[in-house]
Amino acid sequence: MYKLILLRHGQSEWNKENRFTGWKDVGLSEQGVEEAKKAGLVLKEQGFNPKIAFTSYLNRAIKTLWLTLEEMDMMWIPVYNSWRLNEKHYGMLQGLNKAETAQKYGDEQVLLWRRSFDKPPPPIAEDSPLNAKFDPRYAELKDKDIPRTESLKDVIDRMVPYWEEEIRPALQEHGEVLVAAHGNSLRAAVKYFKNMSKDEILKFNIPTGIPYIFEFDENMNFVKDYFIGDPEEIRKLMEQVANQAKKA
Amino acid sequence: MYKLILLRHGQSEWNKENRFTGWKDVGLSEQGVEEAKKAGLVLKEQGFNPKIAFTSYLNRAIKTLWLTLEEMDMMWIPVYNSWRLNEKHYGMLQGLNKAETAQKYGDEQVLLWRRSFDKPPPPIAEDSPLNAKFDPRYAELKDKDIPRTESLKDVIDRMVPYWEEEIRPALQEHGEVLVAAHGNSLRAAVKYFKNMSKDEILKFNIPTGIPYIFEFDENMNFVKDYFIGDPEEIRKLMEQVANQAKKA
Repeated sequence: MYKLILLRHGQSEWNKENRFTGWKDVGLSEQGVEEAKKAGLVLKEQGFNPKIAFTSYLNRAIKTLWLTLEEMDMMWIPVYNSWRLNEKHYGMLQGLNKAETAQKYGDEQVLLWRRSFDKPPPPIAEDSPLNAKFDPRYAELKDKDIPRTESLKDVIDRMVPYWEEEIRPALQEHGEVLVAAHGNSLRAAVKYFKNMSKDEILKFNIPTGIPYIFEFDENMNFVKDYFIGDPEEIRKLMEQVANQAKKA
Repeated sequence: MYKLILLRHGQSEWNKENRFTGWKDVGLSEQGVEEAKKAGLVLKEQGFNPKIAFTSYLNRAIKTLWLTLEEMDMMWIPVYNSWRLNEKHYGMLQGLNKAETAQKYGDEQVLLWRRSFDKPPPPIAEDSPLNAKFDPRYAELKDKDIPRTESLKDVIDRMVPYWEEEIRPALQEHGEVLVAAHGNSLRAAVKYFKNMSKDEILKFNIPTGIPYIFEFDENMNFVKDYFIGDPEEIRKLMEQVANQAKKA
């Protein structure tokens, strides 16, 4: 039996301000820090024992992982970073306040941008200083791999090869693996594991800071998934995420 | 020109209490946390740009590295951990208060144990629960590689292969590398790079939290070494370390 622990980073400074973040490298808020510590504590209490961890290139996921590992007394396990676990790139919406965008374009358009399966928001300009190609952390990527906007489908297309080539072999070798990432890169994983329809995944909200366990059998067939924590708290967190795109 | 940044972790909880630490996994004190942040700040200010980092299996070095990288806004660079960068194993002295040990055995014996080139302190017992072979983080080591005590010579013997096989190739590939480690694993490195005599290295104290730069030419010949920071503060820190073994 293989155990995969998915962990969505907690509140960032921009979540707090209700702004679209995407590939913008925004740090955790104090609440986000507490969420990560709590995740580590509950994983430790329940005897989880990941042998290796994966995270994105974005500070809020990395910091979540570090705080979790610190709480678990597992700071020494190997950690691998990949841009393929980054949040969905929100194109021109990055930096905009979600409520303001909703007032301007209407709830429906914003929900479509946030949650359309294959329609990305308008891209940022090729020569914009916000283009990730000017960020040294992406220097080793091919130009064609650096997005200027993404749909959930695009996220799946870049995340699945990383799962197949890196995370899955690590899980089969080590038995237990921790992945700290983002709402949409984790949603891509969940759709893939559970073979969800587009409609299902669009309605599925992963709560922040709550460890989400996937179990696979010896042939890597999906067996079951469950959250670790208080069910009532988890329900509230999932609602909260779903309401984020609505007007303030 | 290749630049290697060595960084000795700041004060740990046991440094504060003046106890021998070695392979015991003791966390940073608040002062140690501040030292690490300051190191990150000064490295950032001076434009250092490591592409990859190495550290030990011990929390106080890992946390120092993480805090430094966070301050430098470089949390995403690859980090590799190895037991070969661990502090010297202090055998039966681990956990003892240094001043008490000095009162009991005399300054001279303690200084010999701490600083003798090739005479290790008495080993901990094979079946002691403190034997690192019972710690899961060392599960992949061969039994013969797990020390129960070490001299500085032993540290050099296990550190140099890691330098030759991992750190040096990384430095030649990436140009700039950060190593966060411990007083004696870094002393082993310094002796090796500068071809110091036993006497010289025994007298050489690496200050905590002060980035220590080694430059090598294109053939990996040692060119020069220097500390980054205020010279007067560095002198005081080096004295402080030298005085730690004396009676309180």
